[in-house]
Amino acid sequence: MAEMFEIDLNGKKKLPLREVRSAVIPAKGGWGHPLKAGQFIRVTDPCGKQAGDFWAFNASNLDEHLSAMHTRVWVNKLCPVPGESFHTNHRRPILQVIADTCGVHDLLTAACDEHRYRLYGVQGDHASCEGNLRQAMKPHFPGRMYVPQPLNLFSNVQVFPDGRVLTCDNPSKPGDYIVLKGWIDCIIAISACPQEFNPIAGWYPTELHVSILEEHVS
Amino acid sequence: MAEMFEIDLNGKKKLPLREVRSAVIPAKGGWGHPLKAGQFIRVTDPCGKQAGDFWAFNASNLDEHLSAMHTRVWVNKLCPVPGESFHTNHRRPILQVIADTCGVHDLLTAACDEHRYRLYGVQGDHASCEGNLRQAMKPHFPGRMYVPQPLNLFSNVQVFPDGRVLTCDNPSKPGDYIVLKGWIDCIIAISACPQEFNPIAGWYPTELHVSILEEHVS
Repeated sequence: MAEMFEIDLNGKKKLPLREVRSAVIPAKGGWGHPLKAGQFIRVTDPCGKQAGDFWAFNASNLDEHLSAMHTRVWVNKLCPVPGESFHTNHRRPILQVIADTCGVHDLLTAACDEHRYRLYGVQGDHASCEGNLRQAMKPHFPGRMYVPQPLNLFSNVQVFPDGRVLTCDNPSKPGDYIVLKGWIDCIIAISACPQEFNPIAGWYPTELHVSILEEHVS
Repeated sequence: MAEMFEIDLNGKKKLPLREVRSAVIPAKGGWGHPLKAGQFIRVTDPCGKQAGDFWAFNASNLDEHLSAMHTRVWVNKLCPVPGESFHTNHRRPILQVIADTCGVHDLLTAACDEHRYRLYGVQGDHASCEGNLRQAMKPHFPGRMYVPQPLNLFSNVQVFPDGRVLTCDNPSKPGDYIVLKGWIDCIIAISACPQEFNPIAGWYPTELHVSILEEHVS
């Protein structure tokens, strides 16, 4: 039987949900899956201090995607909070934040990539969020794809009053999660960030859990 | 005879430059041109309070471009200051800030586009920075191009301690300019922002002047 549970909405109302799919994204690995309009996606950090790079594309037009620079203009904030939505480069909502036990996410910094690890001095292959995205989206993007700014879940990038932008300690506690609801049919891609050279994933990359959920009408 | 002038470097050293090309970007219009490694580009706001959306692409691989999200990670700031460089999505420098009399530029907000003006209620066509970019890059991008986060010159987008991101009054004075030096051969595109519905261009779009300069060895 499918897992059932309730999500707390502002401490007042409960939202009963039914799990229709779940997956474990292994440490340093990636995952991709469609999310239909009206479905929910929950991303959980089971061990704590783990960043998840997250992308969402319009399933019927992959040129349209969750866009940090358009979202900021819409919500007039660095990152949406529960009740608010992420927007696309076509200036319409794609995902609404329904619940968020961590409350710290980043829309400012690039996904890690092969160039980043080369600059760290890594010889040979190293997993990267950009590589995980490309792998997850391969069935959908046959050619070379553009990599938009990710939503870096559970990532603590702070902007200081003097304009400095610094990656700080990851504050996510074991079991912290975010729940997002699809406004349109999407393709979602998530990378369990393999970055071990800064505090974005607590200096030690671990797994993420993901569930696709539907509202349960009893 | 080419115009000659000197740029003040930190109030100590003068950099003698020779103008090799100049253009007026009309109010609400766009402009595109190659910039060779070692050349300088100066963008001037002659009337004041005018934003200029600015993009730079690697001339030999247009998939590589000035990238806000990679630049922030490199300089650990919202925007580079004189002496620092803008970086690409391949994590290498593309343009160095040489001089900057305004000191206020934005790397957080999207270019205005047809969707934005439709949401404002505009019926029919309206010039946009995204449209100006596409027009300027048409000779180089034969297909539909991806639009990266622009460098919004002379744009005052402030991040407040509570995470709010707001477009504030444009502080650029008549004659303010920025000078950038190419690290690699680039294609540059600039739009004189046609946005009249917020203070990004002082509520009244005006022209921009642009010069390509080379170091003058006497």
